[in-house]
Amino acid sequence: MRDRQNVKEQKEKLPVTDLTRLRRFPIRGSFERETIYSILDKAPLAHIGFGSPPSVLPMVFFRRDDHVYFHGAQKNRMFGELSKGTPCCFVATLLDAFVAARAALHHSVNYRSVVIYGEAEDVDEPGAKLEALKCLIERFYPGRWKEIRPPSPQEFAMVRIFRLPIQQASAKIRTGFPTPYPEDFGMPVWAGVVPVNVTLGEPLLDPNCAADTPPYDFSHLKGVIEKG
Amino acid sequence: MRDRQNVKEQKEKLPVTDLTRLRRFPIRGSFERETIYSILDKAPLAHIGFGSPPSVLPMVFFRRDDHVYFHGAQKNRMFGELSKGTPCCFVATLLDAFVAARAALHHSVNYRSVVIYGEAEDVDEPGAKLEALKCLIERFYPGRWKEIRPPSPQEFAMVRIFRLPIQQASAKIRTGFPTPYPEDFGMPVWAGVVPVNVTLGEPLLDPNCAADTPPYDFSHLKGVIEKG
Repeated sequence: MRDRQNVKEQKEKLPVTDLTRLRRFPIRGSFERETIYSILDKAPLAHIGFGSPPSVLPMVFFRRDDHVYFHGAQKNRMFGELSKGTPCCFVATLLDAFVAARAALHHSVNYRSVVIYGEAEDVDEPGAKLEALKCLIERFYPGRWKEIRPPSPQEFAMVRIFRLPIQQASAKIRTGFPTPYPEDFGMPVWAGVVPVNVTLGEPLLDPNCAADTPPYDFSHLKGVIEKG
Repeated sequence: MRDRQNVKEQKEKLPVTDLTRLRRFPIRGSFERETIYSILDKAPLAHIGFGSPPSVLPMVFFRRDDHVYFHGAQKNRMFGELSKGTPCCFVATLLDAFVAARAALHHSVNYRSVVIYGEAEDVDEPGAKLEALKCLIERFYPGRWKEIRPPSPQEFAMVRIFRLPIQQASAKIRTGFPTPYPEDFGMPVWAGVVPVNVTLGEPLLDPNCAADTPPYDFSHLKGVIEKG
């Protein structure tokens, strides 16, 4: 039953609104939750626009069900703005490749991006807030929460976490080779795709740890971050 | 003389304004052009916030002297907004590492980001516009402009390029290990840094090219993009 409900939710298409309609170059737009979630779950960072005149901040985040969550310092200017119920714009982008074409204006990049418009909500009920902070850690380091020191009351009070519903949202994806323009095929220039790969490097132990600290298993983080 | 002038410009510090002052966690803020330029020149993408309510778009860009330039379709909604002289916010971010600490709220990421506030200007004089499109290609593929087909009059008319002065701008950088909190040193958990590396993969020739097309030299693109 639970599984069937998940399948239904995954296949759900989001409504197209004035803000999320793709106006130009509908390279490959998608309003499917499954596609949107798969991009969000692969992106370590988002850029969030808020306020007027607009500011944009890079943030780590996590997705849980149909919300994205992000946190920061209690006095962060963004949270002051979002608390007023003003709209924001959340964008996560993965750069996948450079696309070198035969014609100047056909050069492009392959990418996957998600944009979410909406009003973010303060997760301030202590139980939900602690759970959200735990999910943020466990997105990257599953099982780690029970090994680390939980927030002190003072630390807990100094941080805020907000969540934004994935409702007015869309994905945009470009893949593959240069768009074929047969009139340019004869040009004697290399054209094609150069993939951009992301990998994790060798973990470096904090010199303030005991030298015999057992290694940590970063295979989950690798799965989240690595691509190409 | 020219060199001395460049050195002077490189050392210039930008003014701190209400928008660019670092309010929280001044991890390492910088207002030096040299630092700001070095981050911009390493970032393939920026996220640009504009309008009210704000929208954010990912864009490729290039820096030339004290401006960043970005382009798009003539009818792109962003350019309509920017044409009115409304302010925008340009952010370029490089994710360098995950920082796993002993305490939940000391987890972090190492990153370098630049934020630029200002009003962007339409580069619409045909000579300057063509030169800017050339610079965008040559940022990633130096020498390529002379090998590829330049924009047709119709293509040229369908694209716009805007530039934003790097004046109200700052950089923010986090590097190194978890911030040392001696009260947590005794915890028997791995702490440290996991680098995020970016590399170029093997170039893939467009199947619409002749199979004997000579390879292209992507060493410059590697230098721009690769890190870690």
